[in-house]
Amino acid sequence: MTMPAAHPSPPKYQSLAEHYRSAIQAGSLLPGQRMPSLRELVRQHAVSLSTAMHVCRLLESEGTLEARPRSGYFVRTPERSRLAPVNDPPMQRAPDPAQYVGIHTKVSEFLALGRMQRFKTNLSTARCAPELYPSQALNLAAQRSLRQDPEQLVRAAPPQGCLEFREVLAQRAMGAGMHLSANDIQVTNGCTEALNLVLRAVAQPGDTIAVESPTFYGLLQTLESLGLKALEIPTSPRTGISVDAVELALRNTQRIKAVVVIPYLQNPTGSIMPSSHKQALLRLCQQHDVALIEDDTYSALVDDSVLREEPLRAIKSWDDSGHVVYCASLHKSLAPGLRLGWVSAGRWQTRVEMLKFAASRSNERLAQRAAASFIASAAYDRYLRRLRSILATQRTQTAQAVASYFPPGTRLTVPRGGLSLWVELPHQLSATALFHAALAENMVIAPGTIFTNSNRFENHLRVNCGWPFTPEIDHAFARLGQMVGALAHATSGAKAGRLAAS
Amino acid sequence: MTMPAAHPSPPKYQSLAEHYRSAIQAGSLLPGQRMPSLRELVRQHAVSLSTAMHVCRLLESEGTLEARPRSGYFVRTPERSRLAPVNDPPMQRAPDPAQYVGIHTKVSEFLALGRMQRFKTNLSTARCAPELYPSQALNLAAQRSLRQDPEQLVRAAPPQGCLEFREVLAQRAMGAGMHLSANDIQVTNGCTEALNLVLRAVAQPGDTIAVESPTFYGLLQTLESLGLKALEIPTSPRTGISVDAVELALRNTQRIKAVVVIPYLQNPTGSIMPSSHKQALLRLCQQHDVALIEDDTYSALVDDSVLREEPLRAIKSWDDSGHVVYCASLHKSLAPGLRLGWVSAGRWQTRVEMLKFAASRSNERLAQRAAASFIASAAYDRYLRRLRSILATQRTQTAQAVASYFPPGTRLTVPRGGLSLWVELPHQLSATALFHAALAENMVIAPGTIFTNSNRFENHLRVNCGWPFTPEIDHAFARLGQMVGALAHATSGAKAGRLAAS
Repeated sequence: MTMPAAHPSPPKYQSLAEHYRSAIQAGSLLPGQRMPSLRELVRQHAVSLSTAMHVCRLLESEGTLEARPRSGYFVRTPERSRLAPVNDPPMQRAPDPAQYVGIHTKVSEFLALGRMQRFKTNLSTARCAPELYPSQALNLAAQRSLRQDPEQLVRAAPPQGCLEFREVLAQRAMGAGMHLSANDIQVTNGCTEALNLVLRAVAQPGDTIAVESPTFYGLLQTLESLGLKALEIPTSPRTGISVDAVELALRNTQRIKAVVVIPYLQNPTGSIMPSSHKQALLRLCQQHDVALIEDDTYSALVDDSVLREEPLRAIKSWDDSGHVVYCASLHKSLAPGLRLGWVSAGRWQTRVEMLKFAASRSNERLAQRAAASFIASAAYDRYLRRLRSILATQRTQTAQAVASYFPPGTRLTVPRGGLSLWVELPHQLSATALFHAALAENMVIAPGTIFTNSNRFENHLRVNCGWPFTPEIDHAFARLGQMVGALAHATSGAKAGRLAAS
Repeated sequence: MTMPAAHPSPPKYQSLAEHYRSAIQAGSLLPGQRMPSLRELVRQHAVSLSTAMHVCRLLESEGTLEARPRSGYFVRTPERSRLAPVNDPPMQRAPDPAQYVGIHTKVSEFLALGRMQRFKTNLSTARCAPELYPSQALNLAAQRSLRQDPEQLVRAAPPQGCLEFREVLAQRAMGAGMHLSANDIQVTNGCTEALNLVLRAVAQPGDTIAVESPTFYGLLQTLESLGLKALEIPTSPRTGISVDAVELALRNTQRIKAVVVIPYLQNPTGSIMPSSHKQALLRLCQQHDVALIEDDTYSALVDDSVLREEPLRAIKSWDDSGHVVYCASLHKSLAPGLRLGWVSAGRWQTRVEMLKFAASRSNERLAQRAAASFIASAAYDRYLRRLRSILATQRTQTAQAVASYFPPGTRLTVPRGGLSLWVELPHQLSATALFHAALAENMVIAPGTIFTNSNRFENHLRVNCGWPFTPEIDHAFARLGQMVGALAHATSGAKAGRLAAS
């Protein structure tokens, strides 16, 4: 910063504070991001420790930074973009007996509408932009594999999956506290096939499966297609499924054969189950002898700040009875174009292997080998750290946009990882109405209603934060905010009309 | 051929006959292969037409060639290797009510035993040797695709399948008389997934599906895993399923929802359904409003001699009511390492697409694009013609080996295409006993019992002809023949013992 010579220089701490104030206003430092430490300030700007402290206290006093105990200073979220968290459901409520009521048709209609044309802005998916995934490294690995084993496309692949891929998966599973061997793993066509096989292994048509509510629509579609009934269990956007409600359900409902949960970054809410909840849920499932199906699709996207508090720990890591079926996939965290999932099914492993063979035989080798080679390299963890940091930024930017543009009363909990936000509209406004209004302007969102068989979550929506927050996306949120405002206006107008008519 | 000058030269026709006699004895011209035409003999050997006729008549009179009306001369199968055709089942017999009786366990045991170690000789599969498939062309196509679309591994693929692949499939379908658009096609993970989806689309657990008997064990496994009952319909090793028996079944059995047939080169018998049978079967299914599931995995391997008599014609080509579900795969004819199948499901197409999405989402792009690019090239038909000609030779060599080494009473019908032979052992000898005896010497065969839920076909086996007929394979058949002889000896000894004791 150059200063006019005519004026006396402001004190060093003021010019340095102004430097950071501008950086924050320009978006170089985002709300929630960590301010350089005092030590870093001293080193980078060649100032004394007391000047550095002065800078931070000044920025704190004016509301630009906030101090967090034992963590340092962080950029404060501006008042205007502070949203109340999404409402918790009544967690002790008896489970909703809503079973299949045409979810597949409902979801299919939304999906079909969402695919009808190329959209300007698609906020409905749960995927990152292609450039965030390591396509070059995977391409090279695939080409290397084709050179090293030129007959792989014309030789039948092993039914359980390629050994080198299963070995890498088993090694990585150690990072979540699991002790698996390659033999405990069956490779599948994505987590979707894994869930299909597992549900068929543990249940018969007509049986009931307890699921989170809301849950991802793919699970509801799978349950319907298999003739299984979904029992929706209240789920907190912060701590996940209500273990008390699961207990109530297991006591009072016949033929529950499994509980399906996403402990890390639940889809759509982004909740993370505390360890104590995971262990309590496992004990429940063991006592009632039902399968606990753990979908671990998103744990690679959990923020590093969470991992510093407590390392990853799969429910399966505590399982001493074979009741936990662990499923995962690389679809979200590594490569949406590869259909790579896997399952370690505990006491149902042999049956799952038989069902996989009867359902689709082996997976192709090439994808497994390309993935195995990349995951085994040091580049994989570097890639994941970078992805998580980018996603953290994009989540913050998206949350800011919702806070800035959506009308008062909108609620939002920013998850501690992942690529989606779960937004609650004020005044019971309909996200389905918003979906249709957005569609008319070439934008797609995912309305809350597709994440349940019941009529809950009608005023919720899931938005994707996997794409760089461009001016176009900012504009889309501004437009969505206006649409929500118009819906609110129409609703209050209608209410006023009803009042006037009554 | 040089002749000693001291002797008078034999007539030209005799030396030319000797030339061909030697060629046939050396195996350069195989039993069943066509002798050069008279015109070709005239041109190649610069002889007169009457000499050429003389040669062929001489070779015919001594039993080396046989004349076929309007087709010319063919190398005759030597007497010692002439086997009676496999017995037809009683075609009017009421269908066997054998339903699921543990086929999956039975098959799994055989499969598990067959996978326990690397076998010296594996005659149990239905696949070609890797070197017969175009791995180099497919590798190049895959690498080209990776260069042209470097983001394909990290972008989600279209749920119905890649357009360019479906377009190529639709074009090829014209060759079997079908008029499909890319939109009528759903890409699947092999024909196995196609059959799973279709069966789930047309039937509910507890329903009955009419199948050929014998049929490939994969279908029986799939039916069991879906809770469906298999009704086995008598099937001729020459003309396929008995249409009369299907009619009887449709009249007398409740809840038949579909008939599954492999019209070309049925697995395991190799039968080919005559056009009149296909049309009659279609009319039946239309009248009774059941799905006719046509598995067309093998038609690319039908001998050119069959195609000269009548071009390929899928049952679906006559379907004007949407009752035919056409499934196929590239697993046998192009690349066992690619899991590429597809289905065109007529009136059930939308439901199949929904089930595919709920079961495993999309197929990966790379395999589809590599296959599409190769199939669209002129190299594809050249490759197929070469493959068919090699398979014809290997089938003949294998049939000869069975004829030479197996004891009298063994029966065999050589199919007009494909990569398997269906052998009937004499005197009701047990192919399961042969399976275990072979296993002890590191050889695997596919015993007839895995192709049925009933106790039929206990004295049949399927052997693979997809691998080059090496001295090792010749030796394996010699050894198998000795084992069958030993079984026959043990059986007649036991009978004699029983007679002596009575």
